Amino acid sequence: MCFKKVILLLSILPFALCQDISDPSPFPRPLIIEYAEINGARLGDCLSVEVQLKCTSWRVAVEANNLSPWARIPEDCADYVKEYMVGKGYELDLQRVSNESENYARSASLSGDGKDAWIFDIDETLLSNLPYYEEHGYGLEIFDSTKFDQWVEMGTAPAVESSLKLYNAVLSLGIKAFLLTGRSERHRNITVHNLLKSGFQDWNKLILRSTEDHGKTATKYKSEKRDELIKDGYRLLGNSGDQWSDLLGSSTANRAFKVPNPMYYIP
Amino acid sequence: MCFKKVILLLSILPFALCQDISDPSPFPRPLIIEYAEINGARLGDCLSVEVQLKCTSWRVAVEANNLSPWARIPEDCADYVKEYMVGKGYELDLQRVSNESENYARSASLSGDGKDAWIFDIDETLLSNLPYYEEHGYGLEIFDSTKFDQWVEMGTAPAVESSLKLYNAVLSLGIKAFLLTGRSERHRNITVHNLLKSGFQDWNKLILRSTEDHGKTATKYKSEKRDELIKDGYRLLGNSGDQWSDLLGSSTANRAFKVPNPMYYIP
Repeated sequence: MCFKKVILLLSILPFALCQDISDPSPFPRPLIIEYAEINGARLGDCLSVEVQLKCTSWRVAVEANNLSPWARIPEDCADYVKEYMVGKGYELDLQRVSNESENYARSASLSGDGKDAWIFDIDETLLSNLPYYEEHGYGLEIFDSTKFDQWVEMGTAPAVESSLKLYNAVLSLGIKAFLLTGRSERHRNITVHNLLKSGFQDWNKLILRSTEDHGKTATKYKSEKRDELIKDGYRLLGNSGDQWSDLLGSSTANRAFKVPNPMYYIP
Repeated sequence: MCFKKVILLLSILPFALCQDISDPSPFPRPLIIEYAEINGARLGDCLSVEVQLKCTSWRVAVEANNLSPWARIPEDCADYVKEYMVGKGYELDLQRVSNESENYARSASLSGDGKDAWIFDIDETLLSNLPYYEEHGYGLEIFDSTKFDQWVEMGTAPAVESSLKLYNAVLSLGIKAFLLTGRSERHRNITVHNLLKSGFQDWNKLILRSTEDHGKTATKYKSEKRDELIKDGYRLLGNSGDQWSDLLGSSTANRAFKVPNPMYYIP
């Protein structure tokens, strides 16, 4: 295991592995380690090239919606997913999707009649459950709804900062925010409390699963709720969610933005 | 530049950069280069951690359909994209999507009435234009339709091998193959010739853009063609395409499979 100790070392000694070979000798020689200005070297550099390739391929397949329903991350990608989540990868991806979304929102032609709308999912989109998943193997453990509910009921999930930035930008343009979550209606109060505490304000409506929505797939439940918004005359400009089941189905938004999440899958 | 010479070196000397630190000394010390069994070390190891992170993030955003229309790859990802395409990354991703698609096809409940259908795009899905893009910066150059047409008219594009495997598996299950391409009707003969030469046979129909389809986006053109298939009673079990415009729109298939392609974007 070359794990935490290497983080320490690499945070002191960032490096790049490039050799300036000025003679054409075909024989192997010792590689020269050079100092570099970048400070991106982290835990992930300890994973073998093979694991990096394989698990990146798996993660890309997740983000492209190419995988069948899956219950937990591949066991041999456990360190990779952890590194991605706590390292720079996740943060970079979050910022990219937030920036893309904001650029699109700013360029969209708005009607200004109060019917321009944007849909936001909550978990892993507006609020981060990373403190919970840190304790549960970053998706390596099978999902335990009892334990997760206990976490939700603490109401302490931090904001996904890049999403808070997008959220505020969207509101500042006069677009209405609809929060459409798979959370249960019985968690309304704690969810409102958590959202406010984490900096989210002034949403138009918070939609949670009511009794009759339980047992439906997220795709079906969320599609029905979007159908209702369309019937009420809203134009769905954008939709931000970390699950494809947030984004696909009927009454889809003009642009859908897949927020990264390699930890779990909701059908 | 630590480019081709390092490929040479690394192909002789595969390595992993992991140190087994058994004492907790917080002081920097020389890193130890270890031999490893894997042979995945290539050109990409020359890219800085920063470029790897940034360009992987960009590529994930492409595959997740998070980017606005884009005309060419980011300039600072030119080496990264090349490495991905000629290295193991692209091949791994192709195999993964092919395997996922085949598993799904084998588990799908088929009617057996001759109306089970699968849609395949052609370019970068069944046939590879990599020999062309090798000569044109792997997406770094702005697309030149005249030059690309000259390449198409040679009829020498090789099969995407993983897609040929899927294609044959799909046919062996009794599913009808519909080839739905953005290529023009005037390229029908050379396309048929190229497909046959590369090993593809027995498709049910090859659909190309006719005069009235020119000027439509791929999403619109392909949606209209899928609408017609549905009207003809076909059930679209699967759809394989390297562009989201192959997969989204109306009459979408039960499962859509995004074949990797970081080189270009078609709306």
